[in-house]
Amino acid sequence: MSTDHTYVHGYSDSEHARLLDQASTLTDLLHWDTGYPPGSLVLEAACGVGAQTITLASRSGGATVVSIDISAGSLSTARQRVCAAGIADVVFGQADLYALPFRAESFDHVFVCFVLEHLARPREALASLRRVLKRGGTLTVIEGDHGSVYFHPESRAARRAIQCLIDLQARAGGDSLIGRSLYPLLMDAGLRDVAVSPRMVYVDASRPDLVDGFTRKTFTAMVEGVGERAIADGLIDEATWRQGIRDLYRTAETDGTFCYAFFKAVARKH
Amino acid sequence: MSTDHTYVHGYSDSEHARLLDQASTLTDLLHWDTGYPPGSLVLEAACGVGAQTITLASRSGGATVVSIDISAGSLSTARQRVCAAGIADVVFGQADLYALPFRAESFDHVFVCFVLEHLARPREALASLRRVLKRGGTLTVIEGDHGSVYFHPESRAARRAIQCLIDLQARAGGDSLIGRSLYPLLMDAGLRDVAVSPRMVYVDASRPDLVDGFTRKTFTAMVEGVGERAIADGLIDEATWRQGIRDLYRTAETDGTFCYAFFKAVARKH
Repeated sequence: MSTDHTYVHGYSDSEHARLLDQASTLTDLLHWDTGYPPGSLVLEAACGVGAQTITLASRSGGATVVSIDISAGSLSTARQRVCAAGIADVVFGQADLYALPFRAESFDHVFVCFVLEHLARPREALASLRRVLKRGGTLTVIEGDHGSVYFHPESRAARRAIQCLIDLQARAGGDSLIGRSLYPLLMDAGLRDVAVSPRMVYVDASRPDLVDGFTRKTFTAMVEGVGERAIADGLIDEATWRQGIRDLYRTAETDGTFCYAFFKAVARKH
Repeated sequence: MSTDHTYVHGYSDSEHARLLDQASTLTDLLHWDTGYPPGSLVLEAACGVGAQTITLASRSGGATVVSIDISAGSLSTARQRVCAAGIADVVFGQADLYALPFRAESFDHVFVCFVLEHLARPREALASLRRVLKRGGTLTVIEGDHGSVYFHPESRAARRAIQCLIDLQARAGGDSLIGRSLYPLLMDAGLRDVAVSPRMVYVDASRPDLVDGFTRKTFTAMVEGVGERAIADGLIDEATWRQGIRDLYRTAETDGTFCYAFFKAVARKH
């Protein structure tokens, strides 16, 4: 009886899991459930160069997206991108996340992606976002967690190289391990019905798009990018650094695997 | 167009993700897609005390499950459990995984759960299982990965305590980090169509069943269980150990979170 019931669920589950297991891009994994209903007013806070704006707007047909950022240069790039994609329902504005130029309860929904990890005061940022959100509206937060990384073959040098990235982000006032703590952060900021959904990226040779697009060109490239500074700052010696980067690329070979987790949280203002 | 299409998927996806995100037991997470069709003959290798046997058999109505283990004592417990659950279609037999007393290509499917991590020669075990599997049949492997653990608040002492568990399992010839390497292991053993699906357990205070059932009573209890040996073997000092265990329990408080990943692989014999 209960077995049959579970089994029936099993079939639709299987279809979904197949989709998630086979998600070949980060967009599939993070945004299959992103989207707001027609007529709603959505704030995208700290849109940067608009990396998520097109996805957000194109998955929210009929909604109006207000995308703000503190940098005029980033906004200009974002505007061009969105325009080139032929999307009309996005309004851009220059604004500080900590001092939003909107009245309380202006937005039906708020969306923040890869922002809190760079902030020195994420709690304050969330309070600011909560203020402009209508009661009953949702706040969606997506963040990574660099402490969620593991791979095969294991490598101490690769771990040390990754730690440089974590340490440099911490010195800059950020927290690259923030994904795992979204639940307490949002509760602490007065949000309710906090539902956190981990989005684990698992990469092996059967997923060549992710091997190239995630292991090599996203994660390893990101670590590689801080090399000069990490060595200059004395966080690591050059030989260990080089070995670490080689070992990260090694996980992209046909017998390697790579794991990382993003966290997506949706919370409500009561 | 493609947006609409994706959006439609979004609804069924959302139902599934809700189920997975809210999976309150390990059984839901690991076994929602476990099950074999009526009439099939399934080998459960190294069933131990039958922890997975009832789930496997009750999700495979009309199939015959042959559950083997090397220990007569474990088999006796497993037999009693399955009998008490009123399940008829399980045949038990004492056998060595490395020297299975079955002809080649005897089974439609093979199922192994939490076994390889304890073996000194997992490749050889897989070759042995592959031999008794029919061409076209599937081999399912489920394993944990103790290196997939992270939590909030972070704690160096807790990490050191977990490392003791990993080191002790390695000294006993096992590999508690095996989950991440199922793909190369199965490919290496000559299996094909290897599809690995990570099953991430994410625990926060909104999931009290998992806080108690997983963070406290499964993972932390398992680490706690090797304390005496870890201290006696000089892997850790007693003060650090105690702090580590305290910090693991700390992650089960209302502002804590806990993450772990299992890996489920399904492969085919060509």
